[in-house]
Amino acid sequence: MYKAPERILLGHGSGGRLSHDLIKHFILPAFANPVLSELHDGARLTIDGARLAFSTDSYVVKPRFFPGGDIGKLAVCGTVNDLAMCGAEPLYLSAGFIVEEGLPAGELQQIIASMQSAALAAGVAIVTGDTKVVEKGAVDGLYINTAGIGRILPGVDIDARRVKPGQTVIVSGYLGDHAIAVMSERHGLTLPAQIVSDCAPLNKLVRELLTAVPAAVTMLRDPTRGGLATTLNEIAADAGVGIILEENAVPVRPEVQAVCEILGFDPLYLANEGKVIVIVEKEYNEQVLAIMRQNALAGSACIIGTVTEKPPGQVALKTMVGGLRLVDMLAGEQLPRIC
Amino acid sequence: MYKAPERILLGHGSGGRLSHDLIKHFILPAFANPVLSELHDGARLTIDGARLAFSTDSYVVKPRFFPGGDIGKLAVCGTVNDLAMCGAEPLYLSAGFIVEEGLPAGELQQIIASMQSAALAAGVAIVTGDTKVVEKGAVDGLYINTAGIGRILPGVDIDARRVKPGQTVIVSGYLGDHAIAVMSERHGLTLPAQIVSDCAPLNKLVRELLTAVPAAVTMLRDPTRGGLATTLNEIAADAGVGIILEENAVPVRPEVQAVCEILGFDPLYLANEGKVIVIVEKEYNEQVLAIMRQNALAGSACIIGTVTEKPPGQVALKTMVGGLRLVDMLAGEQLPRIC
Repeated sequence: MYKAPERILLGHGSGGRLSHDLIKHFILPAFANPVLSELHDGARLTIDGARLAFSTDSYVVKPRFFPGGDIGKLAVCGTVNDLAMCGAEPLYLSAGFIVEEGLPAGELQQIIASMQSAALAAGVAIVTGDTKVVEKGAVDGLYINTAGIGRILPGVDIDARRVKPGQTVIVSGYLGDHAIAVMSERHGLTLPAQIVSDCAPLNKLVRELLTAVPAAVTMLRDPTRGGLATTLNEIAADAGVGIILEENAVPVRPEVQAVCEILGFDPLYLANEGKVIVIVEKEYNEQVLAIMRQNALAGSACIIGTVTEKPPGQVALKTMVGGLRLVDMLAGEQLPRIC
Repeated sequence: MYKAPERILLGHGSGGRLSHDLIKHFILPAFANPVLSELHDGARLTIDGARLAFSTDSYVVKPRFFPGGDIGKLAVCGTVNDLAMCGAEPLYLSAGFIVEEGLPAGELQQIIASMQSAALAAGVAIVTGDTKVVEKGAVDGLYINTAGIGRILPGVDIDARRVKPGQTVIVSGYLGDHAIAVMSERHGLTLPAQIVSDCAPLNKLVRELLTAVPAAVTMLRDPTRGGLATTLNEIAADAGVGIILEENAVPVRPEVQAVCEILGFDPLYLANEGKVIVIVEKEYNEQVLAIMRQNALAGSACIIGTVTEKPPGQVALKTMVGGLRLVDMLAGEQLPRIC
């Protein structure tokens, strides 16, 4: 049985087990409605015959600028990607700024320019917004919320309930770049130049895939907070299936792996902002990989695992030495050994 | 010519002149697109034939609980009202929480319950959301963003460009209750029990009006941050018309007026969260007033002014002694004399 917490902890925002339980047992019952209960990256709605996706996220990343991006680029790409994961073409975004009194206006301007440039790259328009300014100390610089509306692509039905044993788990590229880029900037680490955030809009990749083979794809998710392990756990639980990953197939750059070993991180739990997990009917494996690899954002797409009957609701890793170990959701926060 | 600020000031979030200029000269040019440029409470979009409204707002009210409401009720009613002001029936909301580590979970639960109760009252569903937890001190307790989607009512066209000289300005009731309720709670003032926030969902009132006389109404706005004066200035500027208010017709409770006199506030600039300004074709005056007064939220609806040719883009107040004085947007922040 779920025991409600007395106070909200940092781990409740980690995207892992604590977040999952808070949302499932604390927030969902209050807002109970069938659309919300799907617990996907966004809601799927039909209004006057139009099939829409609707999603929101708040962005609180620290530092606001990091190798490969900034909070503005993240705020646009993050919501664009959440809509794409619903099988939708993102169309319109809102932008809500909460600004700390005294923020240099030039910094705000730079972040806004970065949002607009990301919006152009993704082909979406920022059509409505809100700006609040709070007293010095009442917010840490700048937080941004974006919400977005997309049109669900014709013939597409992305739904965890369609995930069945025998299907294939594909990931679009190397894991952990975003988390390591942000973490290193936060702690002033000097990293190899190859490690930059993968923050990017995935909607064109998703559209190419779903237009070419709409029936092939049963599930799409971007492994952001909580990483690959947490996201696959959510899919396994929602679908009532097992997922077995091949450890030596999971793509992690040697530089990222090295940083993980120094800091004590597991790349399976690191956040990504430009990667997608695609679950496909087995007979489409080669076709899906070929389509993905033609897109610059998924040149290293590869098969990392299989959907199985057992263990139901769980994810297991077949290790390089042939063992099988259960991989749970992220439990709390991954903390670097250095702090 | 607009001179960009060096730093963002509290006044940039006041909803008055500084906010208006920041958005118009700093944010809009960056995100330039025709939908955003309408600068209404929300965007109007057409997707696959469905006429939609889309709006967002972040809620940072302090204290989080005040007479007549709390931040959760406000977050739902505020976005419901922004959609209603676009002539839309609000349908779906998103909710983004930014929570400070250590917030008592019971308080979050109470606020979520309040959101759900406001959503039920308004007839909308909260269908997607996001929860971020930030370190102690990185946010002042709890901020909430809501975004919303609504269906624009058939035959309805709410647009500042339809506001013409000769039309009538109606307000749905007493002004300033919300601002005074929040301010008094913040500063520990003891107020007459009659003063509670007017925070309420206005969508049913708007639907009744627009269903009965869709052609009568040219403009709807809720006078929140910046108050009646700022909102009317925005309408006058967008429409290129003048607006003349009758000072003795503007409804302010004697208790609110008394507090204003003590604190040095002008009720014309006080925020409301459950009032609507309706601009109507003159021949419908009585019909519109009769419809509004049947709704409990607009029992005191009354005519407060007229749209004129001159002064174009400005608002003037015909004072009780017969003079005419210009009423500008709120310049910075209204600060109580006590602090």
